[in-house]
Amino acid sequence: MKIALAQLNYCVGNFEQNTKKIIDAALKAKAEGADLVAFSELSICGYFPFDCLEFSDFIEKCQWALDQIAEKCHDVPVLLGTPLHNGIEGQKPLFNAAVFMYQGKRQVFKKKHIGDNPLFDERKYFEASHDEDQLLELAGHRIAITLGDDLANHGSDPMLMENRMDELVGLKPDLCIAMAASAFDYTMPRYRCDVLRQTVLKHELPLLMVNQVGAQTHLIFDGGSMAFASNGYIDTTLPFFEETVQMIETDSLCYYRTAEDRLAIPEKASLIHDALVLGLRDYFQKMGFKNAIIGLSGGLDSALVTYFAAQALGAENVRVVLLPSQFSTDHSVSDAVALAEKLGVHYDTVAIKPLYDGFEASLKPFFEGRPFDVTEENLQARIRGVVLMAFSNKFGNVLLNTSNKSEAAVGYGTLYGDMCGGLSVIGDVYKSEAYELARFINRTDEIIPWHTIEKAPSAELRPNQKDSDSLPDYAILDQILYQYIECSKSAEEIVAQGFDKALVERTIRLVNRNEFKRHQVAPILRVSPRAFGTERVIPIVAKF
Amino acid sequence: MKIALAQLNYCVGNFEQNTKKIIDAALKAKAEGADLVAFSELSICGYFPFDCLEFSDFIEKCQWALDQIAEKCHDVPVLLGTPLHNGIEGQKPLFNAAVFMYQGKRQVFKKKHIGDNPLFDERKYFEASHDEDQLLELAGHRIAITLGDDLANHGSDPMLMENRMDELVGLKPDLCIAMAASAFDYTMPRYRCDVLRQTVLKHELPLLMVNQVGAQTHLIFDGGSMAFASNGYIDTTLPFFEETVQMIETDSLCYYRTAEDRLAIPEKASLIHDALVLGLRDYFQKMGFKNAIIGLSGGLDSALVTYFAAQALGAENVRVVLLPSQFSTDHSVSDAVALAEKLGVHYDTVAIKPLYDGFEASLKPFFEGRPFDVTEENLQARIRGVVLMAFSNKFGNVLLNTSNKSEAAVGYGTLYGDMCGGLSVIGDVYKSEAYELARFINRTDEIIPWHTIEKAPSAELRPNQKDSDSLPDYAILDQILYQYIECSKSAEEIVAQGFDKALVERTIRLVNRNEFKRHQVAPILRVSPRAFGTERVIPIVAKF
Repeated sequence: MKIALAQLNYCVGNFEQNTKKIIDAALKAKAEGADLVAFSELSICGYFPFDCLEFSDFIEKCQWALDQIAEKCHDVPVLLGTPLHNGIEGQKPLFNAAVFMYQGKRQVFKKKHIGDNPLFDERKYFEASHDEDQLLELAGHRIAITLGDDLANHGSDPMLMENRMDELVGLKPDLCIAMAASAFDYTMPRYRCDVLRQTVLKHELPLLMVNQVGAQTHLIFDGGSMAFASNGYIDTTLPFFEETVQMIETDSLCYYRTAEDRLAIPEKASLIHDALVLGLRDYFQKMGFKNAIIGLSGGLDSALVTYFAAQALGAENVRVVLLPSQFSTDHSVSDAVALAEKLGVHYDTVAIKPLYDGFEASLKPFFEGRPFDVTEENLQARIRGVVLMAFSNKFGNVLLNTSNKSEAAVGYGTLYGDMCGGLSVIGDVYKSEAYELARFINRTDEIIPWHTIEKAPSAELRPNQKDSDSLPDYAILDQILYQYIECSKSAEEIVAQGFDKALVERTIRLVNRNEFKRHQVAPILRVSPRAFGTERVIPIVAKF
Repeated sequence: MKIALAQLNYCVGNFEQNTKKIIDAALKAKAEGADLVAFSELSICGYFPFDCLEFSDFIEKCQWALDQIAEKCHDVPVLLGTPLHNGIEGQKPLFNAAVFMYQGKRQVFKKKHIGDNPLFDERKYFEASHDEDQLLELAGHRIAITLGDDLANHGSDPMLMENRMDELVGLKPDLCIAMAASAFDYTMPRYRCDVLRQTVLKHELPLLMVNQVGAQTHLIFDGGSMAFASNGYIDTTLPFFEETVQMIETDSLCYYRTAEDRLAIPEKASLIHDALVLGLRDYFQKMGFKNAIIGLSGGLDSALVTYFAAQALGAENVRVVLLPSQFSTDHSVSDAVALAEKLGVHYDTVAIKPLYDGFEASLKPFFEGRPFDVTEENLQARIRGVVLMAFSNKFGNVLLNTSNKSEAAVGYGTLYGDMCGGLSVIGDVYKSEAYELARFINRTDEIIPWHTIEKAPSAELRPNQKDSDSLPDYAILDQILYQYIECSKSAEEIVAQGFDKALVERTIRLVNRNEFKRHQVAPILRVSPRAFGTERVIPIVAKF
């Protein structure tokens, strides 16, 4: 049997476009001999629609799209994901369902394990299925259909896989199709493979997992759909970060035919690189934006963001502004110019000294006699923000935020200053990972000036300032942050790992105290297992 | 039997202070003859700690606090709320529990219905109890203990109350204590009463509900604890928005003794007024802030915010800055001065024209030949933001945001300009509700100048500008917004209510298109059933 896995890039709520993509993929796969074309979870509307699911016309549009596809793909067996009305008072209003359609016939499979992933909160909208188990019978095969977390481990023993498949094997399937919408982080391609492999091995059942690809605001879906042979080996991995329709010959997924594991997961820097390019590109394309603007300082963070913007949007759609102050070093300007010229992006220079002097004069009657402090540092950052937003408004460019995760964690940034921007590109990338990315980008050619990478990081908001004046070495800081943020370890537990007690306590205090700043930041492209944003919810008002 | 209901104001994670409050209240109530002192849900740590619950030292501190109270209140029967370790692998790590403590004895009651309120997401942390049902037996009484959503309606018929009490009545209780932490919105005092009354009437069982009071960032808890007689009448309502310990004589809660319903819920404007004062005051107190700063325009919104700040913090802790531009009207300045003088807050004036001219000169080489547009409007708003933040930094005042809900909904505001501020005070108050509030405030005296209330609203960012140039009449707009935001009605459903089709579609388009702006706004004090923020999650990237 030939099954086409359609790993497509959907836009939430863009029913016309999603429907067209689905129909085109289905017809093409059929022409190439597919017996079934399988799409990912909630493919009809795009994953994940959040509260759009509460609007009746959104659900009606899903029905409209299903009908369109049923008509246009009348002779193509398709398997699609869609929300379906529940209709039982006192229960959640919808089911998360798979619909098989072929020649006027429809068969529905509903998700049983509604996920509790804090990224999505499916339980807000979806009721778990109470239907009796059933299979899809097609071309002499008995196919088990699962959706998303149906195949997560729901048992109490993390070593022993227990999930929906334990129920479905009772019906004697010879194949499983797992329709997924699994959001990317750099650990996820490997993790997803490990979890699915456990199910495959437990039941010695070939499994096809079809994931969506593409970004939705901060969430990036990496594709990487997979076909497992019944011996647990991976027969095929679909490309990461790309739309693909791939034909799988299921006969080759048996125990004897797949003799080697064809798992192909790129290295971490490469995954993050490609995720950020896709995240940026999709944000612009799906929002209908074309051009980006960035304040280029000569430092590493803005250099990386400019590079990613040029990759995602094309250099001709990126403009940068250099905004030197009286505290800027010469190399800041020369490094920034070198990068802009290397990438071929348009650059302008606006010296902020006259503007700064203007504010100083206006504020003098009130600030007279008080020393230069963080006020004046922030003032410079905010003047830059105002200039960049004026360019953004006048020319219709979207300002990109250049904060990294280390800075965002400890609050080393100015609200309404360098924290401006419509999208945070590297806000989920620690400074030490930013260095890794820069070296990855420069692996064959000096794209980001080596001087930018090698010089000591500085905000340049007062004479001879260095980040290391007020922050510990990033190599140490980032490890502490990782333990606190990604691993939710307490101060005591982190100290027990060998870190300095005073430093750990100071770092945690800084993270907690700056919750209010992170509340006002742009969406952050998510690449780690725990990005700032909805999945990490720490109260602003709390003494802890 | 005498039961003291302790309606206290906790700070999440401030274990020293919470413990001291609990001990003081318990000892005082005991001295006044209490047979039991009942506190609200999660009283030990404050409701709601969110991801703080993931830190092992946070849970250890809860245990520490329980031990402290057990020791200091050895001879006082107390009933407290606390998270408790679960310890079963593969389940959620905690229980949401009530602990009864008296003379070294402890009895634990665990919450069975873990709520799915999107404000809190309890299911992320808490496992539902699987314990056998039990009662608290004390002073000859058999008391059913419930927590939060245990008493919500879990049946499939909204008219027929079905909840945890249906199970507990099997044990023949003669009284119920409902420990709650019920967040305020202006519909909630009435709703809470109606829901609880249904349970009381179904089982003819007296019921005491104890709620917490006080604000935690955007969430406000209104107190308003209640004692129901078995006939459904309210015997006692505790004050709203105030800490109180109130003794209830349970013998008087029988069918015959409570002859009238003493339900006492203030009117909507009064509730919102008091909620905002408490919300503002607690944000400052619990964050350790003292002083606020506001940009005062002479319009209604900034006037209201200044009034609330003066109420919450004292006029001596509030300073305002008037920031007139070349487009400001004379009455803007005179109305602002009149309010500042009436309230007794310090005011300064910084004309922004010279700063605006500075930016115009710096940007001229790039903007030459392009017309005055939204860029220059936003520039004025952003210059004001920079000046206010400079005052904020230099003098340590927290800038308050003055946007209202109507503006926030349709994006009528400038990011990093008038959308600056650490807390949004009236961001959950529609413009028409702002007028109601102003009239409520002026009910006996002209505090907010009537001219401010009666003049046509204007942003004054270009000559003779009025809000009505680009927005429909607020009276109509707010009704459409209410249907779309609070009621999740589709365009079609709103039009069917009699609103103009083009206007409805334009309004919905504006709301959707400005999701990105709301993403970067300060926490908004929540007073409506659906505030912008975590409880309304609409994707920024979506075509719908």
